[in-house]
Amino acid sequence: MASIVLLTVKQTAQTKVKRCLGSHFKDLAGGNAPSVFLLSGNESLSRGLGLRFMSHGTAGRSAAGSTRTGALALGGAAAVTAAVVGFLANANHFQRAEMATKIPLKSKEEGDIAERCKGFMSAPVTDISVLEERKNEMSTRMEMMIMETQAEFCKALEEVDGGTFKVDKWQRKEGGGGISCVMQDGKVFEKAGVNVSVVFGYLTEEAAKQMRSRGKVLKGKDGKLPFCAMGVSSVIHPRNPHIPTVHFNYRYFEIEEEDGSKQWWFGGGTDLTPVYIDKEDAFHFHNTLKKACDKHHPKYYPEFKKWCDKYFYVRHRGETRGIGGIFFDDLDSPNQEEAFNFVKSCARTVVPCYLPIVKKHLNDSFTQDEKDWQQVRRGRYVEFNLVYDRGVKFGLATPGSRIESILMSLPLTARWEYMHKPVKGSREAEMLEVLRNPKEWV
Amino acid sequence: MASIVLLTVKQTAQTKVKRCLGSHFKDLAGGNAPSVFLLSGNESLSRGLGLRFMSHGTAGRSAAGSTRTGALALGGAAAVTAAVVGFLANANHFQRAEMATKIPLKSKEEGDIAERCKGFMSAPVTDISVLEERKNEMSTRMEMMIMETQAEFCKALEEVDGGTFKVDKWQRKEGGGGISCVMQDGKVFEKAGVNVSVVFGYLTEEAAKQMRSRGKVLKGKDGKLPFCAMGVSSVIHPRNPHIPTVHFNYRYFEIEEEDGSKQWWFGGGTDLTPVYIDKEDAFHFHNTLKKACDKHHPKYYPEFKKWCDKYFYVRHRGETRGIGGIFFDDLDSPNQEEAFNFVKSCARTVVPCYLPIVKKHLNDSFTQDEKDWQQVRRGRYVEFNLVYDRGVKFGLATPGSRIESILMSLPLTARWEYMHKPVKGSREAEMLEVLRNPKEWV
Repeated sequence: MASIVLLTVKQTAQTKVKRCLGSHFKDLAGGNAPSVFLLSGNESLSRGLGLRFMSHGTAGRSAAGSTRTGALALGGAAAVTAAVVGFLANANHFQRAEMATKIPLKSKEEGDIAERCKGFMSAPVTDISVLEERKNEMSTRMEMMIMETQAEFCKALEEVDGGTFKVDKWQRKEGGGGISCVMQDGKVFEKAGVNVSVVFGYLTEEAAKQMRSRGKVLKGKDGKLPFCAMGVSSVIHPRNPHIPTVHFNYRYFEIEEEDGSKQWWFGGGTDLTPVYIDKEDAFHFHNTLKKACDKHHPKYYPEFKKWCDKYFYVRHRGETRGIGGIFFDDLDSPNQEEAFNFVKSCARTVVPCYLPIVKKHLNDSFTQDEKDWQQVRRGRYVEFNLVYDRGVKFGLATPGSRIESILMSLPLTARWEYMHKPVKGSREAEMLEVLRNPKEWV
Repeated sequence: MASIVLLTVKQTAQTKVKRCLGSHFKDLAGGNAPSVFLLSGNESLSRGLGLRFMSHGTAGRSAAGSTRTGALALGGAAAVTAAVVGFLANANHFQRAEMATKIPLKSKEEGDIAERCKGFMSAPVTDISVLEERKNEMSTRMEMMIMETQAEFCKALEEVDGGTFKVDKWQRKEGGGGISCVMQDGKVFEKAGVNVSVVFGYLTEEAAKQMRSRGKVLKGKDGKLPFCAMGVSSVIHPRNPHIPTVHFNYRYFEIEEEDGSKQWWFGGGTDLTPVYIDKEDAFHFHNTLKKACDKHHPKYYPEFKKWCDKYFYVRHRGETRGIGGIFFDDLDSPNQEEAFNFVKSCARTVVPCYLPIVKKHLNDSFTQDEKDWQQVRRGRYVEFNLVYDRGVKFGLATPGSRIESILMSLPLTARWEYMHKPVKGSREAEMLEVLRNPKEWV
């Protein structure tokens, strides 16, 4: 949730922080620059897992190392297509819904930047002229990708709901800004938020260390490190208890060290929080993610699925928040191009993961008891977000953050019943059982 | 909320921890005893205030020092009487409601222990025979007092609501237990929780240090400190948006150091969270508290009022949770007897503080908009409790705590609207204004 939150701790009015990118940071590294804390949004929980995805690559070696050309060739839009085709073969119940869901099959990196921007929910955070000038840089490609993800997802939701997103473009005086899209009290969606943020400035060494969960010490010029962070994040709470809540977040970071070398990494994930278990939905959701992951690395899905179950855990309840999906952080291998392609594949899987499920249950009838159980589960969602989510915690703890964008992830309504216990053998009890013992769905 | 939460971190099955009181700890200080963390429930925020209420007294000097006999003579039930009389003179609108509210005017420490226990919501946590045997010890007197407070308050609420509290008596395997009384979906009260807990065991030195907010280092035998903690805490969420939410908590701690000396202290407070400002209610509530405080020390009310506003502050919103009341911690002066009398006065002020307000608004009509605003304010209440309340945070973070008792403070229902902004000049805007700029009500 609201994983990218930047906050000024100290600032001099004179300092003008420009857009991220190594060459520009150099102008700014000296002087009385603002101290900024950046939130990675989620702590790495991959300790103890077999894989290590972080190699702390510098920009200079992004094209080197163990590039897997095969995976690369199948990355991006192609991977989504393959995932959908594979899914259709496995789960034909969704076939019609899936066919009706518009999926971006054409590579989105083709075409003129200004032309692509026309399809966004708002003008991007960075000036179009700057994006065009730096068209091949990763920060530009990522900003375009997250803006596209926001637009595609919002439009798919508007189509199914009939409602319209309220679009708020906001600026962060220390550098960058964001675009928050929220639909509230819709026909289908009780509350839907899709947020983009692109922020830059300076980190203290301490804040930089906090950001990288494995505690690597980073050296900055005079203790300050220029950074850039951007991401798209979303939480959708539908009205009907048979339509699950979905959350996703994809993000990119760059930090420049004293010697001019750049560190960069990606993070993200998509996870589902149903109110009732529907095995077909669970299979569809996980299988769509798995197919997208498998095009890039056979270990991605199993490891990131495990990481997701660990991260979205409401410890005091002994329950996961939902039935998971994937979650990863600190991804900077095998190289920048392939890591980006993987993240792009994931982001493009959001619509085909979720919309078929929404459409399938659109007209499901429900009782007041089912609605009440949804509200109790929403209470748990609030507990996770306010008590455990590192993005929310860090954001709330730091003065100056945009609270409404951080807390747009909270449901419109929630409920806390004392000693609520589902009847044995009920569908509510079945749901709890799964949350207490996460399952393999694929 | 749920300020007393004890949790085993390590435990050997053989260890049997007995009830608190110095002489019994001695049997237990050695051996492979359980490590227990205790939560003081609330961080001291009195730093920087003019007064220091903590003198780290030992049991041995509890009767010595600057006892203010005058205040002592007016303590306990007499203080409540005086407070009520004073209030009646100042705020005659409440007169009839007040007269109808049963207030315990007779000293509750008179009479046989077994006889007094008959009026409780449940048998006390400690065996009656043990209480009778140690009738004059502070832990017994406090346990009786919190049980009485619970019973008086529950009965007053039942009378006005017509509903009945569900009573859960629970045991803590490491020592002690509690009695949770909850009324849900009542006619007047959407959710009302009144909790007593009496717990004992061992603290590590680190946990003991955390507990005392001013960071005093405590020495235990083999690093372990026998402790005892007890308290009554309550949160009441009414259905009608014109009846405010109330919270109170009164607690007592004992820790025994290596040399056998005992540290003890009291903490507590009562605060009001209205949905709409009613100046008469605010005056009544604060004035009733002030009169009770003034009988003990003229600085108590102004200092504890300030402390309350500081503690119940939702930092990320820039708002207090409600209109405050009093809050204090680490109180161990001028001596144990007078500190206890003060706490007793406060506890006995709960019914006369709150019930007249409930009765006044019992039949107020309200609109859906007013109900929605109440729900938005309930969302803020949840934010405070899950993000800032030290009792809740500590309880949730430690495995083995009784989650349902900790989270019974959450409202039955709450609401989060994106970018909610009351109309200028509205009663909702008036409420926000007060939360942003705490007022003096008396």
